[in-house]
Amino acid sequence: MPHSHRIAPGEKVDLSKISTRGKEYHDDRDQADREFKRFRNELDDLQTRLYAEGRQKLLIVLQAMDAGGKDGVTRSVFKEVNPQGIRIESFKAPSAEELSHDYLWRIHQRVPAKGMIAVFNRSHYEDVLVVRVDELVPKKMWEARFEQINQFEKYLSDNGTRILKFFIHISREEQLERFQERLDDPEKHWKFSIDDIKKRQKWDKYMAAYEDVLSKCSTDYAPWHVIPGDHNWYRNWAVAQVITETLHEMNPQYPPLAEGLKGLKLE
Amino acid sequence: MPHSHRIAPGEKVDLSKISTRGKEYHDDRDQADREFKRFRNELDDLQTRLYAEGRQKLLIVLQAMDAGGKDGVTRSVFKEVNPQGIRIESFKAPSAEELSHDYLWRIHQRVPAKGMIAVFNRSHYEDVLVVRVDELVPKKMWEARFEQINQFEKYLSDNGTRILKFFIHISREEQLERFQERLDDPEKHWKFSIDDIKKRQKWDKYMAAYEDVLSKCSTDYAPWHVIPGDHNWYRNWAVAQVITETLHEMNPQYPPLAEGLKGLKLE
Repeated sequence: MPHSHRIAPGEKVDLSKISTRGKEYHDDRDQADREFKRFRNELDDLQTRLYAEGRQKLLIVLQAMDAGGKDGVTRSVFKEVNPQGIRIESFKAPSAEELSHDYLWRIHQRVPAKGMIAVFNRSHYEDVLVVRVDELVPKKMWEARFEQINQFEKYLSDNGTRILKFFIHISREEQLERFQERLDDPEKHWKFSIDDIKKRQKWDKYMAAYEDVLSKCSTDYAPWHVIPGDHNWYRNWAVAQVITETLHEMNPQYPPLAEGLKGLKLE
Repeated sequence: MPHSHRIAPGEKVDLSKISTRGKEYHDDRDQADREFKRFRNELDDLQTRLYAEGRQKLLIVLQAMDAGGKDGVTRSVFKEVNPQGIRIESFKAPSAEELSHDYLWRIHQRVPAKGMIAVFNRSHYEDVLVVRVDELVPKKMWEARFEQINQFEKYLSDNGTRILKFFIHISREEQLERFQERLDDPEKHWKFSIDDIKKRQKWDKYMAAYEDVLSKCSTDYAPWHVIPGDHNWYRNWAVAQVITETLHEMNPQYPPLAEGLKGLKLE
């Protein structure tokens, strides 16, 4: 049984003690790559069954610092999956209309429908991350959100949505390298903005905010996983492994033929 | 220059005269498969540029009889594309809320945003197809829709949305074979319902309705293509070829680095 990187409910998380490398959990990259390809094909089969069954829903939340690899996970892990059954929901800075509502309003609109997988690229957790670090609302307000979020996720879970949350954990040094690459490679310029540097300067505040998120909001019904993110191959393998395992547990089934159609020969 | 299967504006379409096979346009399947793979990789590159540029939008409309291959196109043609930049929008029978609005209301909500590709699996054309064949609204009402749809698409086009429409054309015999496969293969049962048989019995009425759609709604700004659909390899090749060519014309560009970031060395 490989390391799942799952945070136990109530576990106190210290990110400085958690590896960003991952190689200590899987030192054979070739084997990991082979397993990753197998996971991807299994995901394809499992997603088709989920869609065909049309009953269960899977919500995957991705959070990371800038250049942490959220886009990379989205692209690599779901490579073999039929795009019809998956929605990638990117949450950017909220619009004026979204801001005029409570912070879960726009989130609730994009939770997965029956048979679907939704991948949140950023999420309601930004409302206790950037919102906290940049002091966009009073402390009293964001502090109340951990419990509100747990209740919201419990409600979704009770109504048939399986939830998996991943924090992709990269080192400060790795982020620097990736930023420099975006500055140097004309095909990556678009991924970089001056805001990224400003956020990087608040690294420690973000780590503290993430530690609270991970310590307060990992539950049995919506667990957080801290995935070492410095090496893409390990990150992809680890995320794919958790999702594949969860879909196996959900065990979606092809539905039977409707009554009256059995053995029918068309002409 | 391969056959584009594009319908000229005002062209009178007789579907019984248009091949459902396609082999007459490309008799070398191996070569087509190689080209198709090249198209897919080009689509990946072009879509990344479109997303990075964040300015243009591409709307792809897919229509076909049941088992015609809409899902197959979605899955095969966009295989290499980052799911973050594409949304597959499936339009099923409208909900009570959707029915309480005009028929383009739900469509407009799902047109692509800047930098995005949206693929409509079924579309507003159902409002002049099933709605007409099943007499869900009076003739006078659906007849007015051809012009309304042309105006709507013109408006989208004038506001920066490139539109491509594909009717995947299969023979009645091919549909029968695919239906029987769905009845016989337990992993395909879920794709089949008794309604499919009822619709099949109205084949000729549907062909007449499609002929009107193709004759009245193929425009310079939103052209229809009639793609021979009996052979999946030809269908995929032909659709991918048109989309790739169009994206080359749109010629999306990676944006430059923001002012003040040029030559920046991070530390």
